[in-house]
Amino acid sequence: MPFETKATITSFGGKLFKLSHPSSTTTTPMAVNLYLPPSALSSSTTPVPLLIYLSGLTCTPENCSEKGFFQHRASQLGLAILYPDTSPRGLNYPGETDSWDFGAGAGFYINATQSPWNVGYKMQDYITHELPQVLFSDPEYGKYIDSSRVSITGHSMGGHGALTLYLKNKGTYKSVSAFAPICNPSNCPWGQKAFSGYLGADNKEEWKKNDATELIKSQEWKGEKDARILVDVGTADGFYEKGQLLPEKFEEAVKEAGVGGVKVRYQEGYDHSYYFMASFADEHVEWAAKNLGLL
Amino acid sequence: MPFETKATITSFGGKLFKLSHPSSTTTTPMAVNLYLPPSALSSSTTPVPLLIYLSGLTCTPENCSEKGFFQHRASQLGLAILYPDTSPRGLNYPGETDSWDFGAGAGFYINATQSPWNVGYKMQDYITHELPQVLFSDPEYGKYIDSSRVSITGHSMGGHGALTLYLKNKGTYKSVSAFAPICNPSNCPWGQKAFSGYLGADNKEEWKKNDATELIKSQEWKGEKDARILVDVGTADGFYEKGQLLPEKFEEAVKEAGVGGVKVRYQEGYDHSYYFMASFADEHVEWAAKNLGLL
Repeated sequence: MPFETKATITSFGGKLFKLSHPSSTTTTPMAVNLYLPPSALSSSTTPVPLLIYLSGLTCTPENCSEKGFFQHRASQLGLAILYPDTSPRGLNYPGETDSWDFGAGAGFYINATQSPWNVGYKMQDYITHELPQVLFSDPEYGKYIDSSRVSITGHSMGGHGALTLYLKNKGTYKSVSAFAPICNPSNCPWGQKAFSGYLGADNKEEWKKNDATELIKSQEWKGEKDARILVDVGTADGFYEKGQLLPEKFEEAVKEAGVGGVKVRYQEGYDHSYYFMASFADEHVEWAAKNLGLL
Repeated sequence: MPFETKATITSFGGKLFKLSHPSSTTTTPMAVNLYLPPSALSSSTTPVPLLIYLSGLTCTPENCSEKGFFQHRASQLGLAILYPDTSPRGLNYPGETDSWDFGAGAGFYINATQSPWNVGYKMQDYITHELPQVLFSDPEYGKYIDSSRVSITGHSMGGHGALTLYLKNKGTYKSVSAFAPICNPSNCPWGQKAFSGYLGADNKEEWKKNDATELIKSQEWKGEKDARILVDVGTADGFYEKGQLLPEKFEEAVKEAGVGGVKVRYQEGYDHSYYFMASFADEHVEWAAKNLGLL
Protein backbone atom coordinates (compact mmCIF):
# COMPACT_ATOMS: atom_id res chain seq x y z
CA MET A 1 0.00 0.00 0.00
CA PRO A 2 1.39 3.43 -0.88
CA PHE A 3 1.75 6.29 1.56
CA GLU A 4 -1.13 8.57 2.33
CA THR A 5 0.09 12.18 2.55
CA LYS A 6 -1.39 13.90 5.61
CA ALA A 7 0.53 17.18 5.34
CA THR A 8 3.27 18.86 3.32
CA ILE A 9 5.46 21.45 5.04
CA THR A 10 8.19 23.55 3.46
CA SER A 11 11.38 23.32 5.51
CA PHE A 12 14.85 24.66 4.67
CA GLY A 13 13.97 24.89 0.99
CA GLY A 14 12.81 21.26 0.83
CA LYS A 15 9.59 19.53 1.84
CA LEU A 16 8.63 17.56 4.93
CA PHE A 17 5.86 15.09 4.20
CA LYS A 18 3.74 13.70 7.03
CA LEU A 19 2.79 10.25 5.81
CA SER A 20 0.79 7.25 6.96
CA HIS A 21 0.53 3.69 5.73
CA PRO A 22 -1.06 0.44 6.90
CA SER A 23 1.70 -1.87 8.13
CA SER A 24 1.33 -5.63 7.77
CA THR A 25 4.29 -6.06 10.16
CA THR A 26 2.86 -4.10 13.07
CA THR A 27 -0.77 -4.78 12.05
CA THR A 28 -1.50 -1.04 12.56
CA PRO A 29 -1.42 2.19 10.59
CA MET A 30 2.06 3.71 10.96
CA ALA A 31 2.93 7.40 10.85
CA VAL A 32 6.25 8.43 9.30
CA ASN A 33 7.76 11.74 8.20
CA LEU A 34 9.90 12.07 5.10
CA TYR A 35 12.12 15.06 4.34
CA LEU A 36 13.18 15.64 0.77
CA PRO A 37 15.92 18.21 0.14
CA PRO A 38 15.53 20.84 -2.61
CA SER A 39 17.92 18.94 -4.90
CA ALA A 40 15.58 15.92 -4.93
CA LEU A 41 12.61 18.09 -5.84
CA SER A 42 14.28 20.07 -8.60
CA SER A 43 13.15 19.38 -12.17
CA SER A 44 16.31 17.41 -12.99
CA THR A 45 15.60 14.80 -10.38
CA THR A 46 18.34 12.34 -9.61
CA PRO A 47 17.59 10.11 -6.61
CA VAL A 48 19.19 11.20 -3.33
CA PRO A 49 20.59 9.01 -0.56
CA LEU A 50 18.59 8.42 2.62
CA LEU A 51 19.30 8.81 6.32
CA ILE A 52 16.89 6.93 8.62
CA TYR A 53 16.49 8.57 12.05
CA LEU A 54 15.20 6.42 14.94
CA SER A 55 13.63 8.35 17.83
CA GLY A 56 13.89 7.79 21.56
CA LEU A 57 11.34 6.73 24.18
CA THR A 58 7.89 8.36 23.97
CA CYS A 59 8.64 10.12 20.67
CA THR A 60 6.65 10.20 17.47
CA PRO A 61 7.92 11.23 14.02
CA GLU A 62 7.18 14.84 15.01
CA ASN A 63 9.73 15.45 17.77
CA CYS A 64 12.93 15.27 15.78
CA SER A 65 11.34 16.75 12.68
CA GLU A 66 10.63 19.88 14.74
CA LYS A 67 13.52 20.00 17.18
CA GLY A 68 16.42 17.99 15.73
CA PHE A 69 17.43 20.38 12.92
CA PHE A 70 18.64 17.56 10.68
CA GLN A 71 16.89 19.29 7.79
CA HIS A 72 19.31 22.24 8.01
CA ARG A 73 22.36 20.38 6.73
CA ALA A 74 20.43 17.69 4.84
CA SER A 75 18.97 20.48 2.71
CA GLN A 76 22.42 21.81 1.87
CA LEU A 77 24.00 18.42 1.15
CA GLY A 78 21.09 16.81 -0.66
CA LEU A 79 20.09 14.03 1.72
CA ALA A 80 16.59 12.67 2.39
CA ILE A 81 15.62 11.87 5.99
CA LEU A 82 13.07 9.35 7.17
CA TYR A 83 11.55 9.73 10.66
CA PRO A 84 9.61 6.56 11.63
CA ASP A 85 7.48 6.13 14.73
CA THR A 86 8.78 4.33 17.84
CA SER A 87 6.16 1.58 18.10
CA PRO A 88 2.80 0.42 16.81
CA ARG A 89 -0.03 2.59 18.15
CA GLY A 90 -3.47 1.57 19.34
CA LEU A 91 -3.10 -2.19 19.66
CA ASN A 92 -4.58 -1.92 23.15
CA TYR A 93 -2.56 -4.79 24.59
CA PRO A 94 -2.90 -5.00 28.39
CA GLY A 95 -0.40 -2.59 29.94
CA GLU A 96 0.55 -1.10 26.57
CA THR A 97 0.24 2.49 27.78
CA ASP A 98 1.01 2.03 31.51
CA SER A 99 4.70 3.00 31.26
CA TRP A 100 6.57 5.57 29.22
CA ASP A 101 9.49 3.16 28.79
CA PHE A 102 7.62 0.03 27.68
CA GLY A 103 4.86 -0.63 25.15
CA ALA A 104 3.53 2.31 23.13
CA GLY A 105 6.34 4.72 22.20
CA ALA A 106 8.92 2.20 23.37
CA GLY A 107 9.21 -0.55 20.77
CA PHE A 108 13.01 -0.73 21.09
CA TYR A 109 13.41 -1.64 17.38
CA ILE A 110 13.39 -5.37 18.13
CA ASN A 111 11.07 -8.25 17.23
CA ALA A 112 9.19 -9.28 20.38
CA THR A 113 8.94 -13.00 21.04
CA GLN A 114 6.62 -12.87 24.07
CA SER A 115 2.82 -12.83 23.87
CA PRO A 116 0.97 -10.57 23.20
CA TRP A 117 3.80 -8.32 21.98
CA ASN A 118 5.04 -10.79 19.38
CA VAL A 119 2.07 -10.01 17.15
CA GLY A 120 2.53 -6.27 16.52
CA TYR A 121 5.77 -5.27 18.22
CA LYS A 122 8.11 -6.19 15.39
CA MET A 123 9.83 -2.86 14.94
CA GLN A 124 13.04 -4.49 13.72
CA ASP A 125 11.27 -6.06 10.75
CA TYR A 126 9.28 -2.90 10.22
CA ILE A 127 12.33 -0.62 10.05
CA THR A 128 14.63 -2.95 8.12
CA HIS A 129 12.16 -4.54 5.71
CA GLU A 130 8.66 -3.23 5.36
CA LEU A 131 9.18 0.53 5.68
CA PRO A 132 12.05 0.82 3.16
CA GLN A 133 10.17 -1.44 0.78
CA VAL A 134 7.08 0.75 1.03
CA LEU A 135 9.17 3.89 0.52
CA PHE A 136 11.28 2.63 -2.38
CA SER A 137 8.25 1.32 -4.24
CA ASP A 138 5.93 4.21 -3.44
CA PRO A 139 4.46 5.64 -6.65
CA GLU A 140 4.81 9.21 -5.37
CA TYR A 141 7.98 9.23 -3.26
CA GLY A 142 9.99 6.17 -4.33
CA LYS A 143 11.56 7.89 -7.35
CA TYR A 144 13.30 10.49 -5.19
CA ILE A 145 15.33 7.98 -3.16
CA ASP A 146 18.45 6.05 -4.12
CA SER A 147 17.71 2.74 -2.38
CA SER A 148 21.35 1.64 -2.67
CA ARG A 149 22.60 4.48 -0.46
CA VAL A 150 21.10 4.40 3.03
CA SER A 151 22.57 5.28 6.44
CA ILE A 152 21.00 5.16 9.88
CA THR A 153 21.10 7.25 13.05
CA GLY A 154 19.11 7.64 16.25
CA HIS A 155 18.77 9.03 19.76
CA SER A 156 18.71 7.16 23.09
CA MET A 157 16.44 4.12 22.51
CA GLY A 158 16.74 5.08 18.84
CA GLY A 159 20.52 5.15 19.20
CA HIS A 160 20.31 1.56 20.43
CA GLY A 161 18.05 0.86 17.46
CA ALA A 162 20.46 2.43 14.98
CA LEU A 163 23.51 0.63 16.36
CA THR A 164 21.87 -2.79 16.61
CA LEU A 165 20.13 -2.68 13.22
CA TYR A 166 23.42 -1.57 11.67
CA LEU A 167 25.37 -4.35 13.35
CA LYS A 168 22.75 -7.01 12.61
CA ASN A 169 22.56 -6.10 8.92
CA LYS A 170 26.15 -5.65 7.81
CA GLY A 171 26.29 -3.95 4.45
CA THR A 172 22.71 -2.66 4.46
CA TYR A 173 23.63 0.78 5.80
CA LYS A 174 26.69 2.73 4.69
CA SER A 175 27.28 4.15 8.20
CA VAL A 176 25.66 4.61 11.58
CA SER A 177 25.65 7.36 14.17
CA ALA A 178 23.95 7.72 17.51
CA PHE A 179 23.20 10.41 20.07
CA ALA A 180 23.25 9.19 23.68
CA PRO A 181 22.47 5.59 22.68
CA ILE A 182 21.54 2.81 25.07
CA CYS A 183 24.74 0.90 24.28
CA ASN A 184 24.34 -2.15 26.49
CA PRO A 185 20.63 -2.70 27.18
CA SER A 186 21.20 -6.08 28.84
CA ASN A 187 22.90 -4.23 31.70
CA CYS A 188 20.72 -1.14 32.22
CA PRO A 189 17.25 -0.69 33.73
CA TRP A 190 15.58 0.52 30.51
CA GLY A 191 16.91 -2.39 28.51
CA GLN A 192 16.25 -4.99 31.18
CA LYS A 193 12.62 -3.91 31.49
CA ALA A 194 12.09 -3.89 27.72
CA PHE A 195 13.92 -7.15 27.01
CA SER A 196 12.16 -8.93 29.91
CA GLY A 197 8.80 -7.87 28.53
CA TYR A 198 9.43 -8.36 24.82
CA LEU A 199 11.94 -11.24 24.83
CA GLY A 200 11.36 -12.95 28.20
CA ALA A 201 13.24 -12.43 31.44
CA ASP A 202 15.23 -15.65 31.10
CA ASN A 203 16.07 -15.60 27.41
CA LYS A 204 19.49 -14.05 27.89
CA GLU A 205 20.80 -15.47 24.62
CA GLU A 206 18.02 -13.59 22.85
CA TRP A 207 18.99 -10.42 24.74
CA LYS A 208 22.55 -10.67 23.40
CA LYS A 209 21.29 -10.68 19.83
CA ASN A 210 19.74 -7.27 20.47
CA ASP A 211 22.58 -5.61 22.36
CA ALA A 212 25.14 -3.46 20.50
CA THR A 213 27.86 -4.27 23.03
CA GLU A 214 27.39 -7.98 22.34
CA LEU A 215 26.86 -7.66 18.59
CA ILE A 216 30.12 -5.80 18.01
CA LYS A 217 31.95 -8.83 19.43
CA SER A 218 30.26 -11.24 17.01
CA GLN A 219 32.21 -13.18 14.43
CA GLU A 220 30.89 -10.89 11.72
CA TRP A 221 32.43 -7.75 13.20
CA LYS A 222 35.49 -9.04 15.04
CA GLY A 223 38.59 -7.45 13.53
CA GLU A 224 36.61 -5.18 11.19
CA LYS A 225 38.85 -2.22 10.45
CA ASP A 226 36.36 0.20 8.94
CA ALA A 227 33.18 -0.02 11.03
CA ARG A 228 31.91 3.55 10.33
CA ILE A 229 30.29 4.10 13.72
CA LEU A 230 29.98 7.57 15.32
CA VAL A 231 28.58 8.02 18.85
CA ASP A 232 28.09 11.25 20.83
CA VAL A 233 27.26 11.27 24.54
CA GLY A 234 26.79 14.38 26.69
CA THR A 235 28.74 14.39 29.94
CA ALA A 236 25.85 16.10 31.79
CA ASP A 237 23.27 13.58 30.54
CA GLY A 238 21.32 12.43 33.59
CA PHE A 239 20.57 9.07 32.00
CA TYR A 240 24.26 8.56 31.23
CA GLU A 241 25.04 9.38 34.86
CA LYS A 242 22.42 6.84 36.01
CA GLY A 243 23.99 4.06 33.94
CA GLN A 244 21.28 3.78 31.29
CA LEU A 245 23.64 4.35 28.34
CA LEU A 246 26.92 2.60 29.25
CA PRO A 247 29.01 3.82 26.29
CA GLU A 248 32.16 2.69 28.12
CA LYS A 249 30.94 -0.91 27.92
CA PHE A 250 30.54 -0.50 24.18
CA GLU A 251 34.03 1.01 23.92
CA GLU A 252 35.50 -1.92 25.86
CA ALA A 253 33.76 -4.36 23.54
CA VAL A 254 35.03 -2.49 20.48
CA LYS A 255 38.55 -2.74 21.84
CA GLU A 256 38.18 -6.41 22.79
CA ALA A 257 36.88 -7.21 19.32
CA GLY A 258 39.65 -5.26 17.63
CA VAL A 259 37.17 -3.19 15.65
CA GLY A 260 38.40 0.00 13.96
CA GLY A 261 36.52 3.02 12.62
CA VAL A 262 34.49 3.61 15.78
CA LYS A 263 34.37 7.11 17.27
CA VAL A 264 32.79 7.55 20.71
CA ARG A 265 32.89 11.21 21.74
CA TYR A 266 31.99 12.66 25.12
CA GLN A 267 30.56 16.18 24.68
CA GLU A 268 31.27 18.37 27.67
CA GLY A 269 28.23 19.70 29.51
CA TYR A 270 25.53 18.43 27.15
CA ASP A 271 22.37 16.73 28.44
CA HIS A 272 20.04 14.09 26.93
CA SER A 273 17.65 16.51 25.22
CA TYR A 274 17.04 17.76 21.72
CA TYR A 275 19.22 20.76 22.63
CA PHE A 276 22.11 18.30 22.59
CA MET A 277 21.01 16.65 19.36
CA ALA A 278 20.41 19.94 17.57
CA SER A 279 23.91 21.07 18.52
CA PHE A 280 25.51 18.12 16.71
CA ALA A 281 22.90 17.43 14.04
CA ASP A 282 24.99 19.14 11.34
CA GLU A 283 27.95 16.89 12.16
CA HIS A 284 25.90 13.68 12.15
CA VAL A 285 24.32 14.58 8.83
CA GLU A 286 27.81 15.29 7.48
CA TRP A 287 29.02 11.93 8.80
CA ALA A 288 26.23 10.16 6.93
CA ALA A 289 26.73 12.31 3.82
CA LYS A 290 30.43 11.48 3.71
CA ASN A 291 29.71 7.75 3.91
CA LEU A 292 26.97 8.08 1.31
CA GLY A 293 29.28 9.70 -1.20
CA LEU A 294 27.94 13.26 -0.92
CA LEU A 295 31.08 14.76 0.63
CA MET B 1 15.58 41.71 42.03
CA PRO B 2 18.12 39.53 40.22
CA PHE B 3 17.25 36.49 38.13
CA GLU B 4 16.73 33.11 39.70
CA THR B 5 18.31 30.40 37.55
CA LYS B 6 15.94 27.46 37.13
CA ALA B 7 18.02 25.45 34.66
CA THR B 8 21.21 25.65 32.60
CA ILE B 9 21.36 23.80 29.29
CA THR B 10 24.33 23.51 26.94
CA SER B 11 23.32 24.43 23.40
CA PHE B 12 25.55 24.91 20.33
CA GLY B 13 28.60 25.38 22.53
CA GLY B 14 26.94 28.12 24.61
CA LYS B 15 24.48 28.05 27.48
CA LEU B 16 20.73 28.50 27.63
CA PHE B 17 19.62 29.73 31.04
CA LYS B 18 16.01 29.30 32.14
CA LEU B 19 15.41 32.27 34.41
CA SER B 20 12.66 33.76 36.52
CA HIS B 21 12.22 37.11 38.25
CA PRO B 22 9.46 38.97 40.05
CA SER B 23 8.20 41.76 37.81
CA SER B 24 6.89 44.98 39.31
CA THR B 25 5.43 45.88 35.89
CA THR B 26 3.29 42.80 35.43
CA THR B 27 2.94 42.19 39.21
CA THR B 28 3.80 38.52 38.61
CA PRO B 29 6.84 36.28 38.42
CA MET B 30 8.07 36.26 34.81
CA ALA B 31 9.91 33.43 33.07
CA VAL B 32 12.57 34.29 30.51
CA ASN B 33 15.27 32.31 28.69
CA LEU B 34 18.71 33.75 27.97
CA TYR B 35 21.16 32.25 25.50
CA LEU B 36 24.82 33.17 25.85
CA PRO B 37 27.14 32.20 22.98
CA PRO B 38 30.48 30.53 23.69
CA SER B 39 32.38 33.79 23.06
CA ALA B 40 30.54 35.47 25.95
CA LEU B 41 31.42 32.64 28.31
CA SER B 42 35.08 32.36 27.40
CA SER B 43 37.59 33.47 29.99
CA SER B 44 38.38 36.69 28.10
CA THR B 45 34.85 37.97 28.42
CA THR B 46 33.94 40.99 26.39
CA PRO B 47 30.24 41.81 26.48
CA VAL B 48 28.24 40.60 23.48
CA PRO B 49 25.30 42.30 21.74
CA LEU B 50 21.76 41.13 22.38
CA LEU B 51 18.87 40.05 20.19
CA ILE B 52 15.45 40.07 21.87
CA TYR B 53 13.01 37.55 20.41
CA LEU B 54 9.27 38.08 20.98
CA SER B 55 7.10 34.96 20.67
CA GLY B 56 3.68 34.53 19.11
CA LEU B 57 0.27 33.70 20.57
CA THR B 58 0.18 30.94 23.23
CA CYS B 59 3.95 30.62 23.40
CA THR B 60 6.27 30.64 26.40
CA PRO B 61 10.04 31.21 26.38
CA GLU B 62 10.43 27.48 25.62
CA ASN B 63 8.94 27.22 22.13
CA CYS B 64 11.48 29.23 20.19
CA SER B 65 14.38 28.16 22.40
CA GLU B 66 13.64 24.58 21.32
CA LYS B 67 12.29 24.97 17.81
CA GLY B 68 13.50 28.31 16.41
CA PHE B 69 17.12 27.38 15.67
CA PHE B 70 18.38 30.90 16.55
CA GLN B 71 21.14 29.50 18.75
CA HIS B 72 22.77 27.84 15.74
CA ARG B 73 23.98 31.06 14.12
CA ALA B 74 24.04 33.15 17.31
CA SER B 75 26.63 30.74 18.67
CA GLN B 76 28.84 31.20 15.61
CA LEU B 77 28.52 34.99 15.46
CA GLY B 78 28.68 35.74 19.20
CA LEU B 79 25.21 37.09 19.87
CA ALA B 80 23.13 36.68 23.04
CA ILE B 81 19.40 35.98 22.68
CA LEU B 82 16.65 36.83 25.14
CA TYR B 83 13.35 34.91 24.97
CA PRO B 84 10.70 36.63 27.14
CA ASP B 85 7.23 35.28 27.90
CA THR B 86 4.14 36.50 26.01
CA SER B 87 2.08 37.78 28.96
CA PRO B 88 1.85 37.79 32.74
CA ARG B 89 0.77 34.38 34.08
CA GLY B 90 -1.61 33.55 36.88
CA LEU B 91 -3.32 36.89 37.48
CA ASN B 92 -6.65 35.08 37.30
CA TYR B 93 -8.51 38.00 35.75
CA PRO B 94 -12.01 36.99 34.60
CA GLY B 95 -11.71 35.47 31.13
CA GLU B 96 -7.91 35.48 31.23
CA THR B 97 -7.62 31.90 30.03
CA ASP B 98 -10.83 31.59 28.00
CA SER B 99 -9.23 32.30 24.59
CA TRP B 100 -5.91 31.36 23.06
CA ASP B 101 -5.71 34.76 21.35
CA PHE B 102 -6.51 37.06 24.28
CA GLY B 103 -5.30 37.21 27.88
CA ALA B 104 -2.72 34.68 29.06
CA GLY B 105 -0.19 33.97 26.31
CA ALA B 106 -1.52 36.89 24.27
CA GLY B 107 -0.27 40.13 25.81
CA PHE B 108 0.40 41.72 22.40
CA TYR B 109 3.38 43.70 23.79
CA ILE B 110 1.22 46.74 24.55
CA ASN B 111 0.20 48.56 27.73
CA ALA B 112 -3.47 47.82 28.41
CA THR B 113 -5.62 50.79 29.40
CA GLN B 114 -8.84 48.90 30.19
CA SER B 115 -9.68 47.39 33.57
CA PRO B 116 -8.67 44.85 34.83
CA TRP B 117 -5.95 44.37 32.20
CA ASN B 118 -4.33 47.75 32.86
CA VAL B 119 -2.86 46.49 36.13
CA GLY B 120 -0.68 43.59 34.94
CA TYR B 121 -0.90 43.55 31.15
CA LYS B 122 1.86 46.07 30.49
CA MET B 123 4.04 43.99 28.25
CA GLN B 124 5.32 47.07 26.39
CA ASP B 125 6.82 48.54 29.54
CA TYR B 126 8.00 45.13 30.63
CA ILE B 127 9.90 44.42 27.39
CA THR B 128 11.26 47.92 26.80
CA HIS B 129 12.06 48.97 30.36
CA GLU B 130 11.95 46.51 33.21
CA LEU B 131 13.33 43.37 31.58
CA PRO B 132 16.42 44.97 30.00
CA GLN B 133 17.09 46.83 33.23
CA VAL B 134 16.91 43.59 35.22
CA LEU B 135 19.19 41.87 32.72
CA PHE B 136 21.79 44.60 32.37
CA SER B 137 22.08 45.04 36.14
CA ASP B 138 21.90 41.36 37.03
CA PRO B 139 24.89 40.41 39.20
CA GLU B 140 25.33 37.09 37.39
CA TYR B 141 24.34 37.76 33.79
CA GLY B 142 24.60 41.54 33.29
CA LYS B 143 28.33 41.53 32.66
CA TYR B 144 27.98 39.36 29.55
CA ILE B 145 25.75 41.80 27.67
CA ASP B 146 26.64 45.02 25.83
CA SER B 147 23.58 47.11 26.71
CA SER B 148 24.38 49.62 23.97
CA ARG B 149 23.93 47.03 21.20
CA VAL B 150 20.45 45.54 21.13
CA SER B 151 18.22 44.42 18.25
CA ILE B 152 14.74 42.94 18.28
CA THR B 153 12.85 40.27 16.34
CA GLY B 154 9.68 38.23 16.70
CA HIS B 155 7.08 35.91 15.21
CA SER B 156 3.39 36.58 14.44
CA MET B 157 2.06 38.48 17.49
CA GLY B 158 5.73 38.81 18.45
CA GLY B 159 6.48 40.17 14.99
CA HIS B 160 3.88 42.86 15.67
CA GLY B 161 5.59 43.41 19.03
CA ALA B 162 9.05 43.68 17.48
CA LEU B 163 7.93 46.09 14.74
CA THR B 164 5.89 48.35 17.03
CA LEU B 165 8.41 48.50 19.88
CA TYR B 166 11.11 49.28 17.32
CA LEU B 167 9.06 52.02 15.70
CA LYS B 168 7.94 53.49 19.04
CA ASN B 169 11.47 53.65 20.42
CA LYS B 170 13.58 55.01 17.60
CA GLY B 171 17.25 54.52 18.35
CA THR B 172 16.78 51.95 21.11
CA TYR B 173 17.26 48.95 18.82
CA LYS B 174 19.84 48.78 16.03
CA SER B 175 17.51 46.82 13.74
CA VAL B 176 14.30 44.82 13.67
CA SER B 177 13.15 41.71 11.90
CA ALA B 178 9.92 39.78 11.95
CA PHE B 179 8.56 36.42 10.83
CA ALA B 180 4.92 36.49 9.67
CA PRO B 181 4.13 39.59 11.76
CA ILE B 182 0.67 40.98 12.40
CA CYS B 183 1.45 44.15 10.44
CA ASN B 184 -1.81 46.02 10.76
CA PRO B 185 -3.65 44.82 13.88
CA SER B 186 -6.32 47.53 13.66
CA ASN B 187 -7.60 45.83 10.52
CA CYS B 188 -7.41 42.11 11.35
CA PRO B 189 -9.47 39.88 13.65
CA TRP B 190 -6.62 39.05 16.05
CA GLY B 191 -5.69 42.69 16.50
CA GLN B 192 -9.25 43.96 16.74
CA LYS B 193 -10.07 41.45 19.47
CA ALA B 194 -6.93 42.26 21.45
CA PHE B 195 -7.12 46.04 21.03
CA SER B 196 -10.84 46.07 21.92
CA GLY B 197 -10.14 44.20 25.11
CA TYR B 198 -6.90 45.88 26.17
CA LEU B 199 -7.40 49.41 24.77
CA GLY B 200 -11.19 49.75 24.43
CA ALA B 201 -13.30 49.14 21.34
CA ASP B 202 -13.77 52.85 20.63
CA ASN B 203 -10.29 54.17 21.34
CA LYS B 204 -9.14 54.06 17.75
CA GLU B 205 -6.51 56.74 18.30
CA GLU B 206 -4.94 54.47 20.93
CA TRP B 207 -5.08 51.58 18.42
CA LYS B 208 -3.05 53.60 15.91
CA LYS B 209 -0.27 54.09 18.44
CA ASN B 210 0.12 50.30 18.59
CA ASP B 211 -0.09 49.48 14.91
CA ALA B 212 3.09 49.17 12.81
CA THR B 213 1.31 50.26 9.64
CA GLU B 214 0.28 53.52 11.36
CA LEU B 215 3.54 54.05 13.23
CA ILE B 216 5.69 53.90 10.07
CA LYS B 217 3.70 56.90 8.75
CA SER B 218 4.39 58.98 11.87
CA GLN B 219 6.39 62.20 11.76
CA GLU B 220 9.34 60.40 13.33
CA TRP B 221 9.74 57.88 10.53
CA LYS B 222 8.43 59.73 7.49
CA GLY B 223 11.24 60.03 4.93
CA GLU B 224 13.66 57.90 6.97
CA LYS B 225 16.12 56.44 4.50
CA ASP B 226 17.72 53.72 6.61
CA ALA B 227 14.96 52.05 8.61
CA ARG B 228 16.66 48.62 9.00
CA ILE B 229 13.50 46.54 8.91
CA LEU B 230 13.40 42.95 7.58
CA VAL B 231 10.13 41.01 7.28
CA ASP B 232 9.57 37.46 6.02
CA VAL B 233 6.11 36.07 5.27
CA GLY B 234 5.36 32.56 3.95
CA THR B 235 3.07 32.43 0.95
CA ALA B 236 1.35 29.26 2.25
CA ASP B 237 0.72 30.76 5.69
CA GLY B 238 -2.95 30.11 6.51
CA PHE B 239 -3.11 33.19 8.73
CA TYR B 240 -1.65 35.34 5.95
CA GLU B 241 -4.28 33.93 3.60
CA LYS B 242 -7.02 34.77 6.13
CA GLY B 243 -5.92 38.40 6.37
CA GLN B 244 -4.45 38.29 9.86
CA LEU B 245 -1.00 39.57 8.84
CA LEU B 246 -1.61 42.18 6.08
CA PRO B 247 2.04 42.77 5.09
CA GLU B 248 0.83 44.51 1.92
CA LYS B 249 -0.78 47.22 4.08
CA PHE B 250 2.55 47.73 5.78
CA GLU B 251 4.34 47.90 2.44
CA GLU B 252 1.85 50.50 1.18
CA ALA B 253 2.43 52.58 4.30
CA VAL B 254 6.20 52.31 3.90
CA LYS B 255 5.86 53.57 0.33
CA GLU B 256 3.45 56.34 1.29
CA ALA B 257 5.80 57.51 4.04
CA GLY B 258 8.83 57.37 1.76
CA VAL B 259 10.72 55.14 4.16
CA GLY B 260 13.84 53.34 2.87
CA GLY B 261 15.70 50.31 4.22
CA VAL B 262 12.63 48.11 4.56
CA LYS B 263 12.70 44.59 3.11
CA VAL B 264 9.45 42.61 2.97
CA ARG B 265 10.05 39.17 1.48
CA TYR B 266 7.44 36.59 0.48
CA GLN B 267 8.85 33.09 0.94
CA GLU B 268 7.34 30.62 -1.48
CA GLY B 269 5.45 27.72 0.08
CA TYR B 270 6.25 28.40 3.74
CA ASP B 271 3.59 28.24 6.45
CA HIS B 272 3.20 30.01 9.82
CA SER B 273 5.04 27.43 11.92
CA TYR B 274 8.43 27.06 13.52
CA TYR B 275 9.44 25.07 10.42
CA PHE B 276 9.26 28.40 8.58
CA MET B 277 11.12 30.29 11.29
CA ALA B 278 13.87 27.69 11.63
CA SER B 279 14.43 27.84 7.87
CA PHE B 280 15.24 31.57 8.01
CA ALA B 281 16.60 31.86 11.55
CA ASP B 282 20.20 31.96 10.32
CA GLU B 283 19.37 34.90 8.04
CA HIS B 284 17.53 36.86 10.72
CA VAL B 285 20.37 36.35 13.19
CA GLU B 286 22.78 37.52 10.48
CA TRP B 287 20.61 40.58 9.83
CA ALA B 288 20.77 41.51 13.49
CA ALA B 289 24.49 40.70 13.71
CA LYS B 290 25.24 42.94 10.74
CA ASN B 291 23.38 45.85 12.32
CA LEU B 292 25.03 45.17 15.68
CA GLY B 293 28.51 45.39 14.20
CA LEU B 294 29.32 41.68 14.27
CA LEU B 295 29.44 41.19 10.51
